[in-house]
Amino acid sequence: MPIRLPVELSKSYRLLNHGPTVLVTSAHGGTINVMAAAWSMPLDFSPPKVAVVIDRNTLTRQLVEDSGEFALNVPSRDLARLTLAVGSASGREIDKFRAHGLVAVPGEKIRAPLLEGCVAWLECRVIHEPHVQQAYDLFLAEVVAAWADPDAFSNGHWNPDQGGRHSIHYIAGGNFFATGAAFDVSK
Amino acid sequence: MPIRLPVELSKSYRLLNHGPTVLVTSAHGGTINVMAAAWSMPLDFSPPKVAVVIDRNTLTRQLVEDSGEFALNVPSRDLARLTLAVGSASGREIDKFRAHGLVAVPGEKIRAPLLEGCVAWLECRVIHEPHVQQAYDLFLAEVVAAWADPDAFSNGHWNPDQGGRHSIHYIAGGNFFATGAAFDVSK
Repeated sequence: MPIRLPVELSKSYRLLNHGPTVLVTSAHGGTINVMAAAWSMPLDFSPPKVAVVIDRNTLTRQLVEDSGEFALNVPSRDLARLTLAVGSASGREIDKFRAHGLVAVPGEKIRAPLLEGCVAWLECRVIHEPHVQQAYDLFLAEVVAAWADPDAFSNGHWNPDQGGRHSIHYIAGGNFFATGAAFDVSK
Repeated sequence: MPIRLPVELSKSYRLLNHGPTVLVTSAHGGTINVMAAAWSMPLDFSPPKVAVVIDRNTLTRQLVEDSGEFALNVPSRDLARLTLAVGSASGREIDKFRAHGLVAVPGEKIRAPLLEGCVAWLECRVIHEPHVQQAYDLFLAEVVAAWADPDAFSNGHWNPDQGGRHSIHYIAGGNFFATGAAFDVSK
């Protein structure tokens, strides 16, 4: 039974602050999908907002535009191969959840599912900005709920070794960096 | 004598793809400044574009709006303490270059300086999008030149250990993650 605890919204930016690669989940009209996104970042603290690039040719783009919602799921290193796979295939051609045996967990505030096995989740509602969506494939969204595996992130902080479940940072090809050692320069 | 080699523009997104924290340098009318930004990301491949959040209360914001230019400098771990310092003080109060003994190197395409000692640099020209600048403190820009320390990044690729000069990922407070081990899931 996976554990997932709520993250205070005011701390939710910390789930993305270090720049991990994320998986974007979306749903509309009975279709669900997941894709990888290296290009996401926090956009504001309060209310928390995020920015993410969603290519116009993806099924995710259509589902996000139709539903106005998505979730950002932070995968750990054991999901790196999956991250590459769902970033390489289109949901128009295969049902990626079924093909990879993925488990979709219901979110609390949105209908897009959360992907079981990740270390953190942000439920997001799209902010209507059609110009930047059209011109740059850029989606701005408000974070309406956030969750984390307490072994990795608890009490508003990443545990120093992320509970051994290191997040990942996509480079190119099949290459990633793992999130490395935490250090504190204020001491 | 530091070495800095040009990075092909089509590969320049890779300097930011893994989500490192950056230093934003800017200049206008004889004033130069540097601030830290955890919230930046690539926005497009070709022409390469970036997105970065620049708070409306910063001197950097004024210099970027007045000049239409900035550079993103990727610091390595030995600059983490400096990154925290220039992210905590305002250029309105101190000359951060002078206070920290920083060396500003001229860029090739823009007047904003490059910060010596970093591992990578992207020279950026702001794309005029006043609405997102005003509403979200969000700046979109085209990358017009890019550079890297060849010990860390060469031939369009990060060297697996970044030449021992690991980039950094800001968390909160004085806490960072270092960029960790590279791995390849395609093999």
